[in-house]
Amino acid sequence: MLFPTGHRGAATPAPVVPSTGRLTPLGLDQVRITGGPWARRQEVNATATLAHIEHWLEREGWLGNFDLAVSGGLAEKRRGREFSDSEVYKLLEAMAWELGRRPDEDLQSRFDAIVLRVSAAQEPDGYLGTRFGRPGQQPRYTDLEWGHELYCQGHLFQAAAARARTGRADDLLVDVARRSADHVCATFGADGNQGICGHSEVEVGLAELGRALGEPRYLAQAALFVERHGHGVLADIEFGRSYYQDVVPVRQSEVLHGHAVRANYLAAGAVDVAVETGDTELLDAVAGQWARAQARRTYVTGGQGSHHQDEAFGDDWVLPPDRAYSETCASVGSVMVSWRLLLARGGVEYADAIERALTNVVATSPAHDGQSFFYANTLHQRVPAEHVDTDVVSKRAEASLRAPWFEVSCCPPNVARTFASLAAYVATVDDGGVQLHQYAPAEIRAELPSGERVELDVVTDYPADGRVEVRVVAAPAGDWTLTLRVPAWSASARVRVDDGLVREVGPGLVAVPGPRTGGVVVLDIDAAPRFVVPDPHIDAVRGCVAVQRGPEVLCLESVDLAAVELGAGAGARGGTGRGVDDVVVDTAVPPWEVDGTVYVRAGVLGAGDGAGAGAGDSNGAGWPYTAADDVAPRPRPELHDVPLVAYHDWANRGPATMRVWLPTL
Amino acid sequence: MLFPTGHRGAATPAPVVPSTGRLTPLGLDQVRITGGPWARRQEVNATATLAHIEHWLEREGWLGNFDLAVSGGLAEKRRGREFSDSEVYKLLEAMAWELGRRPDEDLQSRFDAIVLRVSAAQEPDGYLGTRFGRPGQQPRYTDLEWGHELYCQGHLFQAAAARARTGRADDLLVDVARRSADHVCATFGADGNQGICGHSEVEVGLAELGRALGEPRYLAQAALFVERHGHGVLADIEFGRSYYQDVVPVRQSEVLHGHAVRANYLAAGAVDVAVETGDTELLDAVAGQWARAQARRTYVTGGQGSHHQDEAFGDDWVLPPDRAYSETCASVGSVMVSWRLLLARGGVEYADAIERALTNVVATSPAHDGQSFFYANTLHQRVPAEHVDTDVVSKRAEASLRAPWFEVSCCPPNVARTFASLAAYVATVDDGGVQLHQYAPAEIRAELPSGERVELDVVTDYPADGRVEVRVVAAPAGDWTLTLRVPAWSASARVRVDDGLVREVGPGLVAVPGPRTGGVVVLDIDAAPRFVVPDPHIDAVRGCVAVQRGPEVLCLESVDLAAVELGAGAGARGGTGRGVDDVVVDTAVPPWEVDGTVYVRAGVLGAGDGAGAGAGDSNGAGWPYTAADDVAPRPRPELHDVPLVAYHDWANRGPATMRVWLPTL
Repeated sequence: MLFPTGHRGAATPAPVVPSTGRLTPLGLDQVRITGGPWARRQEVNATATLAHIEHWLEREGWLGNFDLAVSGGLAEKRRGREFSDSEVYKLLEAMAWELGRRPDEDLQSRFDAIVLRVSAAQEPDGYLGTRFGRPGQQPRYTDLEWGHELYCQGHLFQAAAARARTGRADDLLVDVARRSADHVCATFGADGNQGICGHSEVEVGLAELGRALGEPRYLAQAALFVERHGHGVLADIEFGRSYYQDVVPVRQSEVLHGHAVRANYLAAGAVDVAVETGDTELLDAVAGQWARAQARRTYVTGGQGSHHQDEAFGDDWVLPPDRAYSETCASVGSVMVSWRLLLARGGVEYADAIERALTNVVATSPAHDGQSFFYANTLHQRVPAEHVDTDVVSKRAEASLRAPWFEVSCCPPNVARTFASLAAYVATVDDGGVQLHQYAPAEIRAELPSGERVELDVVTDYPADGRVEVRVVAAPAGDWTLTLRVPAWSASARVRVDDGLVREVGPGLVAVPGPRTGGVVVLDIDAAPRFVVPDPHIDAVRGCVAVQRGPEVLCLESVDLAAVELGAGAGARGGTGRGVDDVVVDTAVPPWEVDGTVYVRAGVLGAGDGAGAGAGDSNGAGWPYTAADDVAPRPRPELHDVPLVAYHDWANRGPATMRVWLPTL
Repeated sequence: MLFPTGHRGAATPAPVVPSTGRLTPLGLDQVRITGGPWARRQEVNATATLAHIEHWLEREGWLGNFDLAVSGGLAEKRRGREFSDSEVYKLLEAMAWELGRRPDEDLQSRFDAIVLRVSAAQEPDGYLGTRFGRPGQQPRYTDLEWGHELYCQGHLFQAAAARARTGRADDLLVDVARRSADHVCATFGADGNQGICGHSEVEVGLAELGRALGEPRYLAQAALFVERHGHGVLADIEFGRSYYQDVVPVRQSEVLHGHAVRANYLAAGAVDVAVETGDTELLDAVAGQWARAQARRTYVTGGQGSHHQDEAFGDDWVLPPDRAYSETCASVGSVMVSWRLLLARGGVEYADAIERALTNVVATSPAHDGQSFFYANTLHQRVPAEHVDTDVVSKRAEASLRAPWFEVSCCPPNVARTFASLAAYVATVDDGGVQLHQYAPAEIRAELPSGERVELDVVTDYPADGRVEVRVVAAPAGDWTLTLRVPAWSASARVRVDDGLVREVGPGLVAVPGPRTGGVVVLDIDAAPRFVVPDPHIDAVRGCVAVQRGPEVLCLESVDLAAVELGAGAGARGGTGRGVDDVVVDTAVPPWEVDGTVYVRAGVLGAGDGAGAGAGDSNGAGWPYTAADDVAPRPRPELHDVPLVAYHDWANRGPATMRVWLPTL
């Protein structure tokens, strides 16, 4: 059953527009973020990041590859890795959303110019790709494991879906994508090549393009690709087939596994297929995988993936903060999955997860100026991150340092397309009313499925303050419900309608029945800083606490430590002096906030007892393991007020060490 | 100053024979291990492992590559990775030591046959290697970063040194190595190719061959290679030049870093060069690197390397047990370095480190039958290790499962050459007498530098029992001293000579002056099991203890857990039931031993309180991080006597989960 009823794919300018599901998304034309941190991120994205990406794509020749396809010499002169085309498509998607959010003549003409160059490289049969198939190049689809040909075309499809949904279904990009998708269906259909792509993305791309263009064939092809996974279709490799989710069929898998970006992209495509075909078994399977991944394979930041080697999920509970890979793109992918499950099922846990990943991973990646990025997002930096030359491509994708560009540069345009479409994740509607999922100053000008209008203004200083005021500019005539999310991290919350009674509410969904035009609904969430403790199965952070204020995970950064009198060298490099790794926190004193800064009460390990000096271990014996009966009780250190900083703000003040998880006294 | 005085390189059948230094090694003809676990390891090595390795070298065609070099077709038909020649050389070295330990006609003829095939492949100018330089192959030395050409030849040199020292300086292998070394010197000399090898080994190989043959040119070439490191000689790569120790000159480096095997091999070669040239600065530098690596970058097992991706040391204190790489070969390399520093300086810490690495890493690698091996030695297995097909090459070198052979199969022959030469690490002599470093039943028939004979029999059940009896079969005529090592892990020790007074001694060196012929020196080391606690900087094991009995690190293995009534599913797979990851230890009760088995008092996390069930996290909320003020105090679990097993014995009883570090109650 494909697009059974009420096809609305092309009508809503939003990244995911299922034809059915518990909740209905609102487009960028219905929700506008008007202020606060997210509006600032969108502004930096629009005014700096898009041009930054375009500059590097040009400079590194990844855009030029499309020109070479026309002028010849691609085999000899092509630049970039096998997936470099996809970065161009992600930029186009980001530009499309940005144009949908706020038309801009200059941006429009830059967009058109890139599309022209891309379209010129398309081959007569619809195939699009600069790495394979031309004279002197390896033949098409001869390296499904690593070639990324379908992956690249999948990103083309997502870009075209964005374009079609922002009112330009007759666009050249849409036409190019349609021909490419037709080519993919003709090549990989039920009777064709039975392969899959080593990097999932074509599934979600086909499903979305199918929805946007009302083309069931694309969705059917997406379903084929999803189902082919898990049967050993691809070659066995050093990392095993689980790396590309080709060991267990998607509908039988119990948890997200393997390469974390691939896993999330595949799950997103599987949800799209499940929703459009009414495949409850498949939807249940992905929901179960999502739940176990959240419960056992996700960092406190919402980040995923603890293996550097294969950029993969570790086993359950393997979440070392200092070896966190937590790739930015994995969190972009996790937002894609969570949002799809939220639309399909409505569970508040999905919106909680989206807030967490957006706040603490996606927003952590770019520097404040939007022109350098973390690829990996460590939770513990033991040696100061180096200053990166802003004019050099970073060699190592896995480095925990912000760089302007990478040899593998998936993250910058992935952040850009997410920020440009951020307003789409704020609210949804259903037959009963409006659901507010994310809090930011916003204008919501929505239409209910009944056709009735709802207009809301959200006024808030969230997340600095937990008070969210929803002003009802225009209520529908009949009964309706405003549903608000009380985040799982909140200690308590209260809701009040107009001058009515204050009602205490717990984490979850709060239904506010029928506020009237001119009315105000006030949700007060306790966003005071709190200590967070890990499940005892997470070995790597046993005996530690994290500090969270509202949705923001905080961290201790060495630049702040230097200002506190914590003994000699407390702010120094971790190597021989004392730094963030020597701090222990007194959990008897809850964290507190003064003028927007959160403090903890903390001391320095071994300070004043003569230990820890020199190049040896802290017991001075040259061997860091001591018989328990030989250990003297540790003297209680002198305590100080130590400031923390939001994790997403760290590493914006020069080289520093940092830790999210703080050992307790 | 090369081989300044008293060249004894060819006279002593031992792996390292410096011409100067604090202590003088004894050869395999002077020390024989007569019983106990090490004798059993040597027996299995001789009767099973050597033939096993030979079988796989033949089967995989790595031996056949040498034949192809003669018959032609190497470019098309060569098999194995670029370093496969080195495994043949390491087997030859192991065979040479074994033949030196105990002559055997069959082994001798197998050795000769392999040497013949190797020698036939040597080119007229001395170059030896099957991967480069022949028609259709890449030219020689065009890929110093990854080609391993000098690495392979370095292992040839070590094998030839073993052969020369075990009484066969006129051997064909020695001749082949000499011509290869001459070629290397001619090619990479002061005025030649200024390159180094991406994988260190040629340094130590040249130094040892130079010593064995009394050829200062080889040592001078080794010195050149050591000094060239650290100047960016090799290309920058994804892992950075620190991967192959090409960022900081060896004499300026503060700690072992980068690829852990490369780092140790280079350090070993640097010590050889420093000792032979009287370069105190270089020796101090390596000793400092060794000390900081031991203090901050070594697992409790003595294992080194916590990165899977680049098989490298992590930063200081990065020692996650579940992501321990702890490659077998890195510990073989660390024994090489420690032994060289012990000979040069005499410090007891080097012998402690050798005991630790041999007992808990090198001995852990092979299964009891000596025919399958761990490549990596994890300290925490969360999911049961799979049974490995004994007839299949293991694809993934990093797997924590014993396999008969690997695509990268450096570890099996590395273990074999170490075991075959084990007796050389037991004792040394100096002008004053004899030093006993490692304890095993042994016969020592040594000659002091003065020319006087000393004959000792060591009688002991070590490490099962801490009592070591040294029977003086023949004492030298004049004053002499027997020096015994009291291991750092011991709580206390007593020494008694004949029927004399018992003397309490602490960890370190104990000098026993002049025991007479017929006398007995008894050292009683307290080898009772003890809890060991980690330095608080090692984040990954905070709140945990390990248990050590004598030199042996113990672990909890799920097969033992199943027999204890620890609640439903305690022995089950880590995924959903309760297993080793749910056990918490009561440290108020010290570990104890009954009939050779060590027990701890322990309970099961969350047992009986309804938590931990299902696929979610243990707080049941689907998210494993909880606000501290929402956490209920954990009920004290019911306690049981839980048996542990020696870490080197684990995974010999079928698929199992395991952990070395145990969380405390």
